Amino acid sequence: MNIITPRPQRAGSVDFVDGHTRLYGILGHPIEQVRSPETVTFELRRRGINAILLPLHVKPDDFDAVFPQLLKLENLDGLVITVPHKGRTRRHLERVGPLAKFSDGVSVLARSLDDQWIGEMFDGAGCVSALLKRGVTLSGKRILLLGAGGAGAAIAGAIARQEPAILYIHEPDATRSADIVAKLRAAFPRTIVSEGLPNLDAVDVLVNASPVGMLDETRMPLELDRIPAHIAVMDAIMDPDRTRLLKVAEESGCVTVYGREMLDAQISAVCDFLLDARATPADDVVIHR
Amino acid sequence: MNIITPRPQRAGSVDFVDGHTRLYGILGHPIEQVRSPETVTFELRRRGINAILLPLHVKPDDFDAVFPQLLKLENLDGLVITVPHKGRTRRHLERVGPLAKFSDGVSVLARSLDDQWIGEMFDGAGCVSALLKRGVTLSGKRILLLGAGGAGAAIAGAIARQEPAILYIHEPDATRSADIVAKLRAAFPRTIVSEGLPNLDAVDVLVNASPVGMLDETRMPLELDRIPAHIAVMDAIMDPDRTRLLKVAEESGCVTVYGREMLDAQISAVCDFLLDARATPADDVVIHR
Repeated sequence: MNIITPRPQRAGSVDFVDGHTRLYGILGHPIEQVRSPETVTFELRRRGINAILLPLHVKPDDFDAVFPQLLKLENLDGLVITVPHKGRTRRHLERVGPLAKFSDGVSVLARSLDDQWIGEMFDGAGCVSALLKRGVTLSGKRILLLGAGGAGAAIAGAIARQEPAILYIHEPDATRSADIVAKLRAAFPRTIVSEGLPNLDAVDVLVNASPVGMLDETRMPLELDRIPAHIAVMDAIMDPDRTRLLKVAEESGCVTVYGREMLDAQISAVCDFLLDARATPADDVVIHR
Repeated sequence: MNIITPRPQRAGSVDFVDGHTRLYGILGHPIEQVRSPETVTFELRRRGINAILLPLHVKPDDFDAVFPQLLKLENLDGLVITVPHKGRTRRHLERVGPLAKFSDGVSVLARSLDDQWIGEMFDGAGCVSALLKRGVTLSGKRILLLGAGGAGAAIAGAIARQEPAILYIHEPDATRSADIVAKLRAAFPRTIVSEGLPNLDAVDVLVNASPVGMLDETRMPLELDRIPAHIAVMDAIMDPDRTRLLKVAEESGCVTVYGREMLDAQISAVCDFLLDARATPADDVVIHR
C-alpha cells in the first residue's frame, strides 16, 4: 500500500500530489457536479493513502473507446462511475458483484492485486452500512422501503441481498412497483418481497427512498403523527438534513439515520472495496463485508 | 479560465480537487521519479487556476493505443511528456513547434481554445527564459555551449532559435559534436554554428550543459581560474546548487544563472504555453513568447 510518508517541504511545490500518487477517477458526463473528488480523496487521505480521485469527463460517444484504454494506466487503481456510464461499464466487465448483476450497472471499479478489474454497484451500499453502524442489522428483519425510483431500486437490491425476513415495497407508480418486485424476486429468491403498505406493527426498519420531503419540511412520504418506537427509520433525503419523517420518528422515540450518514457510509464502503481489492488477488476479493 | 473561487469549507472533503478541476498529466515510464506533479501544480495554483498535474504511468507497448484516447478526456487541458514517450508523441501530432521539429520529440502538449492539440519541445526553454529574466538576451550574441548530450542538444536548439550571431559547440565526443552541428545548421540556417572552443574574449554567454561538475565541487567543464567579467555564465547542473564553474564565474565578476533558475523558468514557460494555448484558437497560438 502506498502510504503517505513525511517529506522535506520544498519551496515551489504542493504536497498533495507527486510521482508516487495513486490515481482514482470518477467518470461521468457532465462532470462538474460530482462530489467524489472532494469526499473520496478526503477519505483516502484520512486513511493515510497517497492517492487522489479526479473528475474524468468522458462523453457518451467516446466511452467505449476511452474506457478500456484508461484501465491501462498503470497507476490507476479504481474508478467511480456516474451518469450516464453505469450500464456501459457493466457491459465492459466480466467480473462484477451481485448488485451489479441485479441493477445491470456498475458504480465502482477496483483493480485487484493481480491487475484484474472488478465492478460492483454501490448506490445502495450506504443504506445498509449506515444502519449497521447504528447496530441495526437487516438479516431476518421486516423492512419497509418507500419509493422504488433509481435510488430506491439500488437500495432495494442492497437490502434484499441482506436476506431480510420480508421486504415490503411501497411505490405509488404501479408499473414501477410491479417491475422492481419481479426483479427482486428473480435476483434474490431467498428473500420474500411484498408489494404495498403493511401495518407498521409488522415492520422493524423503515427506509424512505422516495423524494417526498425533499426541500420541503412540511411533507413526509407516509402521513403519520407517530411511528412505533421499535422501528428504526432511515431517510435517504439529504436536504433538509432533518426531514419531517425523521422529526416525527425522533419524537416517537425511534432510532433514526440521516441521509448524510448514508452518504458517509457509502464513501467508506467504496474506499473499503477499492483498497481491499488492491491488496487481494481477484479470485479472493470479497466485495461486501 | 477556470479560476479558484472561495467556497464554504465542508467537513469530510479536501479543497484541492473538485468536479471543476481541470486536469494536466505527465506521461512516462517509469513515473515515480517525476517532479512536475508537485512543481507544475504549484505554479498553476499560484496563478489561481483550479487545476492539477497528475502522474500518468503508460507503458511503452500501450502508448499508441492509450495516448489518443487520453486526449478525448474533455477536462484534460495538457500533457507533459517524459522518457520514453517524447518521440512517440511527436509522431501522433500534426501541429508542433520549431523545437519539436528540430529534436523530433515533444515534451509538452496543449489543448487550444478550439480543442486542437499543439506540441512543442520545452527541454531547452528554461535556459533561454532564465537568461532573459536576468536581462541577458541571446539574439545577435556570441554563445558558447559546453556539452551536446540529450540536455545539451535541447538547449542548443532553443539557443539557435534565438538567432545568436554565432553558436559555438564544445563537445568532446567528435561524432556527437559533428551530428549536432549538422542538425543545427539544417534546422536554423540563419544561425552560424561553429564546432570547438573559441577564445573566451569572443564569447558573450557561456552555458554548461555537460555533466562535468555534477555531484563534484572540485571539477569544471573548462579548467579556468578566471572568466572574463563581461560573460554571462549559466550552469544547467542542479546539484550542487553552486558548481565550481559558477563559483569561479562569480569570483570573476560575471553574471551567473543557476540550474534551479533554469528549471523554474522552464516550469513558468510550460505553464505560459499551456494556459495561453487554452485561451487561443490553434491557428493563433504563439508557442514561444
